[in-house]
Amino acid sequence: MANSVEILPIGGLGEFGMNCLAIRYEDEILVIDAGLLFPDPHFWGVDIIVPDFQYLKDNRDKVRALILTHSHEDHIGSVPFLLKAINVPVYATPYTAAVLASKLDEHDLLDEVLIHTVRPKELVELDPFEIEFIRVSHSTTDCAALAIRTPVGVIIHTGDFKFDETPVCGQPIDTESLRRYGDQGVLALLSDSTNVERPGRMYSERDVIPALENIFDSAQGRIIVSCFTSSIHRIQIILDLAETFHRRVTIIGRSMIRNIDTAESMRYLDVPDSLLITPADTRRFAPHQVVMLVTGCQGEPMSALSRMAVDSHKQAKIEAGDTVVLSARQIPGNEKSISRLINHLYKRHAQVYDSTSGRIHVSGHGSQEDLKMMLEATRPKFFIPIHGEYRQLYQHKKFACSLGYKPEQVLLVESGDVIEIEKDSISVPGKIPIGRTYIDSTGIGKIEDIVVRDRKHLAYDGIIVPIITINKSTGKIENEPEIITKGFNIPYDDENDYLTKLSTLITQTIISSEPDERRDEALIKEKVRLEIKRFVQRRTGYRPTIIPVILEV
Amino acid sequence: MANSVEILPIGGLGEFGMNCLAIRYEDEILVIDAGLLFPDPHFWGVDIIVPDFQYLKDNRDKVRALILTHSHEDHIGSVPFLLKAINVPVYATPYTAAVLASKLDEHDLLDEVLIHTVRPKELVELDPFEIEFIRVSHSTTDCAALAIRTPVGVIIHTGDFKFDETPVCGQPIDTESLRRYGDQGVLALLSDSTNVERPGRMYSERDVIPALENIFDSAQGRIIVSCFTSSIHRIQIILDLAETFHRRVTIIGRSMIRNIDTAESMRYLDVPDSLLITPADTRRFAPHQVVMLVTGCQGEPMSALSRMAVDSHKQAKIEAGDTVVLSARQIPGNEKSISRLINHLYKRHAQVYDSTSGRIHVSGHGSQEDLKMMLEATRPKFFIPIHGEYRQLYQHKKFACSLGYKPEQVLLVESGDVIEIEKDSISVPGKIPIGRTYIDSTGIGKIEDIVVRDRKHLAYDGIIVPIITINKSTGKIENEPEIITKGFNIPYDDENDYLTKLSTLITQTIISSEPDERRDEALIKEKVRLEIKRFVQRRTGYRPTIIPVILEV
Repeated sequence: MANSVEILPIGGLGEFGMNCLAIRYEDEILVIDAGLLFPDPHFWGVDIIVPDFQYLKDNRDKVRALILTHSHEDHIGSVPFLLKAINVPVYATPYTAAVLASKLDEHDLLDEVLIHTVRPKELVELDPFEIEFIRVSHSTTDCAALAIRTPVGVIIHTGDFKFDETPVCGQPIDTESLRRYGDQGVLALLSDSTNVERPGRMYSERDVIPALENIFDSAQGRIIVSCFTSSIHRIQIILDLAETFHRRVTIIGRSMIRNIDTAESMRYLDVPDSLLITPADTRRFAPHQVVMLVTGCQGEPMSALSRMAVDSHKQAKIEAGDTVVLSARQIPGNEKSISRLINHLYKRHAQVYDSTSGRIHVSGHGSQEDLKMMLEATRPKFFIPIHGEYRQLYQHKKFACSLGYKPEQVLLVESGDVIEIEKDSISVPGKIPIGRTYIDSTGIGKIEDIVVRDRKHLAYDGIIVPIITINKSTGKIENEPEIITKGFNIPYDDENDYLTKLSTLITQTIISSEPDERRDEALIKEKVRLEIKRFVQRRTGYRPTIIPVILEV
Repeated sequence: MANSVEILPIGGLGEFGMNCLAIRYEDEILVIDAGLLFPDPHFWGVDIIVPDFQYLKDNRDKVRALILTHSHEDHIGSVPFLLKAINVPVYATPYTAAVLASKLDEHDLLDEVLIHTVRPKELVELDPFEIEFIRVSHSTTDCAALAIRTPVGVIIHTGDFKFDETPVCGQPIDTESLRRYGDQGVLALLSDSTNVERPGRMYSERDVIPALENIFDSAQGRIIVSCFTSSIHRIQIILDLAETFHRRVTIIGRSMIRNIDTAESMRYLDVPDSLLITPADTRRFAPHQVVMLVTGCQGEPMSALSRMAVDSHKQAKIEAGDTVVLSARQIPGNEKSISRLINHLYKRHAQVYDSTSGRIHVSGHGSQEDLKMMLEATRPKFFIPIHGEYRQLYQHKKFACSLGYKPEQVLLVESGDVIEIEKDSISVPGKIPIGRTYIDSTGIGKIEDIVVRDRKHLAYDGIIVPIITINKSTGKIENEPEIITKGFNIPYDDENDYLTKLSTLITQTIISSEPDERRDEALIKEKVRLEIKRFVQRRTGYRPTIIPVILEV
């Protein structure tokens, strides 16, 4: 029997999103989560980024199972891509399993995948591992930490969590089970670092009720609420408030309808009888009798709320007297689109509440006191901060050390580092290949790196395609070179002449070449490309993509 | 004599940045400020955006002068572009004039422009206008509100302001002069709306001293401070603290050096003797004797601090034990690049302070109480919120109404609206043409709208250029069509065949065309384009730019 276990972060350490991590003992591998990352806007045409699963593909016969902590996209968004490469059984809590099933169905994979539903406190035996799902609190429902018993010791992976003793839906976090493992001895803890920079305790999901109640109490017209579609607690609160204030609820936006459907059918949401009405039915009620629960809290241009705000949605539009509630945080990068949305809402004379107008949103990730409670419940021998950029991981280490952990007990690692843990030691003996795969969800799937780079180059400076016809027998230019440009900013004080000048330059370049050169197509192409490049750059500073085409006739 | 005056916002109302506004009485026009806007990243290759000055160009013979409130880029950044179109005299306070002069020098315009330096309380007579510069507080120095006396009444334009009775540099805001105009009667107030959503009073520039002092007190090694290069108050505080704590200061980054130079030579900054040392000289001092004042507080990749953080700066690099202080706000859109910078700083074992670590930055724009003080000092008959997106303008109107202004006294307008004010009425009788001009600062200047649109299209889906050679006499295809692609994601499961299939498609399209069609080059090009478009979209969902080239031989 080997005396070490390996932890292999494939994504999510040193970056937010794309969480994926493997635990290996000898020739047996467990994978925990397979999430995605939403790209910055300069990844032209890339819709999502998923991890490069090369390490798992190289070891496909060793991977026993994929274990999911919860249903957020940064934890399950790349599961279809992983399962297409290596089809292994999946273990997840009922709600997570249901969300995954709907996702796999979209990818035509549902019939091919084996999904095991696991309830908290149940044990999953996958020799030599034994996995217990432990209930934790978070912004969606049915979330779990994982206690993974290995021959070397117990590893606890928190998933995303906070300590919420008064959740709106489901049970509170199962601190007792965490403590039980702590009492028995935990070899290593991997814990969520997202909110390590926030002091104090994170609020309960219930803590948004007073502020939302005030809004319901004072609104004269319709109330339009947007939140993350996975925020099951928040949705339950809105439904309950609607009933209390004698309002009916209509749901607009595909993903909102789907998520509420799933959660209600599994009884994670309690929807009072005859509370829901169709968008068309809202006309039969007075404004003060209506709540709309809609997608689009990030100002996404194609979402229900953004379209309602510019009169381009079929089912509803924002009207004077509406109260719009954005019950969500602003995801970094979305500030401008949210501002744009709010401008439109004001122009239509709606009243707007966002996270600056009181506690109408709370985070699902624990603050420092929550993180401290996790460390104190589990008292691990070794601690590895996960989920965050280097900045958060670094602060989480610093925080653990301020609680008495020795620096050598806390390992600061990033995706790709191989972590080897023995009974009494932890080290980083090497690296595994990791990377990012760009996905275009409307197109054909994977986008090659070179294509993304080319697009960036095209986006900044455009393209010039000079087309040159050369007579095969004489080696002379047949007609004046044709020049096509797109996205290239032709100097405006020179518009009529610029392309003619380029054309003349090409002709001269070819005339002045030796006959031997002219017969070498590759060489003459490169010569033309360089001449144009120099000419353009000197005059304009631009570096367009230049692709000469030579046709021999 | 006419009995109305027009206010014509050309930029900055309904958008942050690009502030520019004209005041017209009969055939006399004053322009107030000419700022720029930094574009969102999806404006491919666009470095800055300046207003379309069409209205001013159309009325060039009527424009008497350009008056500047202060030296920030969103107020003076497009002055060179305006002056190139219409060369009029400029009026500004000494520091603003100096910053402008250096900017005009870069554009080779300095010798052609007449700049008048005006001190606060001085009157500028430009018949029929009389303009008084009134000192206001802001994050840079020598900022002014403008009291513009017209035959119809006095208009007050606040510029950017807060009420700071204890500034670090220069004099406090001149509330007395504002009140004097209030006593005499103000026809209209145009007031800064930036921070209308913040309750209370904005902090004094001086209020950052305690937190910075603590950092200086506890730092063991070098202290590296980055702030906006125009934050003259902040720079003075850093210099003073350095002297108090017996540290020398070195300045790194071109714009930081230039701004400090300008401010010191004009005595807006008080630099103690022998405080400054060169970057090379820092080696002669112990780490605890050194402060570096550097550019890059927004994580700009080419700035001094970002390069120091990845060892690519010639003069300095971040070392273990350094304390890095980011004494600035995060401009929306820059969160990710700042996070990236902080990750690198931590990897080099520096200690990092940013605006989340205590009050090491204060805003230069007044909060609600400041805005209230401005309204109470000037007591205008009409009020027009300026400087902000619709959201801020809307809130500023709401705020004024909560103070007792009647809705009809407050005008909510956006750039392009013509505001007509008579002694007892205000209205919006029409619109003037406005717009945005895209500038590439490394290239040839103006970028056409169509080029920006083309780049966006190229960036998302790439380009396909099929080249088809047709025999002029027979109308037949001479050789197999050549197909060039760039940034187009060829389906990866079909890589070898895809272009061949496209080529075959083209040949078939041409063969199946009538001889008359083949002779019509435009028609055949469009036919080929549509066939390729359909084929590509059906298979991949992409919509690349397609430019068929037909060569007749």
